[in-house]
Amino acid sequence: MKLLRVGAPGEERPAVRTDDGRLLDLSAVTADIDGAFLGSGGVERARAALEAGGLPELDPGGLRIGAPVARPGKIVCVGLNYRDHAAETGAAIPERPVVFMKDPGTVVGPHDEVLVPRGSVKTDWEVELAVVIGRRARYLEDPDEAAGVIAGYAVSHDVSEREFQLDYSSQWDLGKSCETFNPLGPWLVTADEIDDPQDLQLRLSVNGVKRQQGHTRDMIFPVHQVVAYLSRYMVLEPGDVINTGTPAGVALGLPGTPYLRAGDTVELEIDGLGGQRQTFGQA
Amino acid sequence: MKLLRVGAPGEERPAVRTDDGRLLDLSAVTADIDGAFLGSGGVERARAALEAGGLPELDPGGLRIGAPVARPGKIVCVGLNYRDHAAETGAAIPERPVVFMKDPGTVVGPHDEVLVPRGSVKTDWEVELAVVIGRRARYLEDPDEAAGVIAGYAVSHDVSEREFQLDYSSQWDLGKSCETFNPLGPWLVTADEIDDPQDLQLRLSVNGVKRQQGHTRDMIFPVHQVVAYLSRYMVLEPGDVINTGTPAGVALGLPGTPYLRAGDTVELEIDGLGGQRQTFGQA
Repeated sequence: MKLLRVGAPGEERPAVRTDDGRLLDLSAVTADIDGAFLGSGGVERARAALEAGGLPELDPGGLRIGAPVARPGKIVCVGLNYRDHAAETGAAIPERPVVFMKDPGTVVGPHDEVLVPRGSVKTDWEVELAVVIGRRARYLEDPDEAAGVIAGYAVSHDVSEREFQLDYSSQWDLGKSCETFNPLGPWLVTADEIDDPQDLQLRLSVNGVKRQQGHTRDMIFPVHQVVAYLSRYMVLEPGDVINTGTPAGVALGLPGTPYLRAGDTVELEIDGLGGQRQTFGQA
Repeated sequence: MKLLRVGAPGEERPAVRTDDGRLLDLSAVTADIDGAFLGSGGVERARAALEAGGLPELDPGGLRIGAPVARPGKIVCVGLNYRDHAAETGAAIPERPVVFMKDPGTVVGPHDEVLVPRGSVKTDWEVELAVVIGRRARYLEDPDEAAGVIAGYAVSHDVSEREFQLDYSSQWDLGKSCETFNPLGPWLVTADEIDDPQDLQLRLSVNGVKRQQGHTRDMIFPVHQVVAYLSRYMVLEPGDVINTGTPAGVALGLPGTPYLRAGDTVELEIDGLGGQRQTFGQA
């Protein structure tokens, strides 16, 4: 099932996208798609309503798509989680997941404008597989337990300002947390639709030029291992988002490649999860 | 004015503490003290209700105090922001604020049990002055503008697991985000009551032994400068919390000092902001 939120920023309504591409209004089932919805069996309620029929159809014409999860409690990111990306940035293959965070307020819709921060000369792209948590998780002993706490998956754009991230201090969060820096969606694809999260191709292009083409089989720490690992150091709550890392092909790793500027367009997609397209503006 | 939230976890009600120590119920003014309240003139509404009289008195007997702000959107932390603490950890005086984040889900009440994580041998203390944001802020040009976006101040305990923070990767957030790792409160003291945030003494003791005694005049980056700096890299929203750094005296900086274990008691206070007392448990 593909869950999404449509409408003006801050006024999104919940919807489900059918296999034939229609949008059905989920407002009768829930006021929003958020942690409370995901953590209280909301996915099952939405599925039952979909199967029962009768959900009103929405006219997709001109309808903005928002992020598929409202107000994530946190965004946890795993850095350097693809072998080729670690290599291109000159970093060693990490022995443990490199964990950092983004301001959850950075989440915007998949086609919203992304702002190049004032003073930025190194705004960079990163296509990532996002995991959305559906059940509270702490101290999972085994990666096999992780599947049970994942609500689903989405495309995430972990926009990054490399000067703020790498040159201003040892800690990366500053360059990851700028306004609009985390387009998410278009939809939350429930976990039952993704047979194997390690069998997905990710692609990203800038102004039509292919920059990233990776595969989740190349993750150093696969999804279930990441979720179990994180749960041993923090409590994962429904609605939390985990950005699982980016493959090679970012500007940082391609000397001579221009960083992003206002007017640039970035398109990204992941097998089975849909695509995003952002035109960049200036903050 | 001192704003607080009292009651069982998840069921706190808003209250104001009078100068003579009584608790008055603010439920008639707001359902909760959160970003929406702070960002919509809630402090002024609470003050008007207090001055008008007639707020019902609460019986403080046995009443738990929660964190004074519900569901912060983010917790931003400034590391190594006191000269003596940077020195004790062997770090150079930073040229820019070192910015990292904690899971906002770590916030608990000032006297709640704090859990030593499973597998932890280096759970450490850090008394800090917390700034609570009251108005949306982006791209503040001048530190003088910062005063206008600060709702108030509170005592914050930035509990830290040093092995998770420093040994597991280059990024600190993992060791800062463990369950219950951010006691906050007892109250949010509105900014008008703090003449000068750089003129406050901070104290912390462990099992009755004084460990930290610092002064906010020793901050490398003072409060208003921190707020303005952060606003140029991320959007600060009402209800966001900024932990402004800790002075010397943490276990990490005192070779031979035992780290925290279940059964230990930590007490901390800041001039004019009240005190906290936690007994540690085992996760």
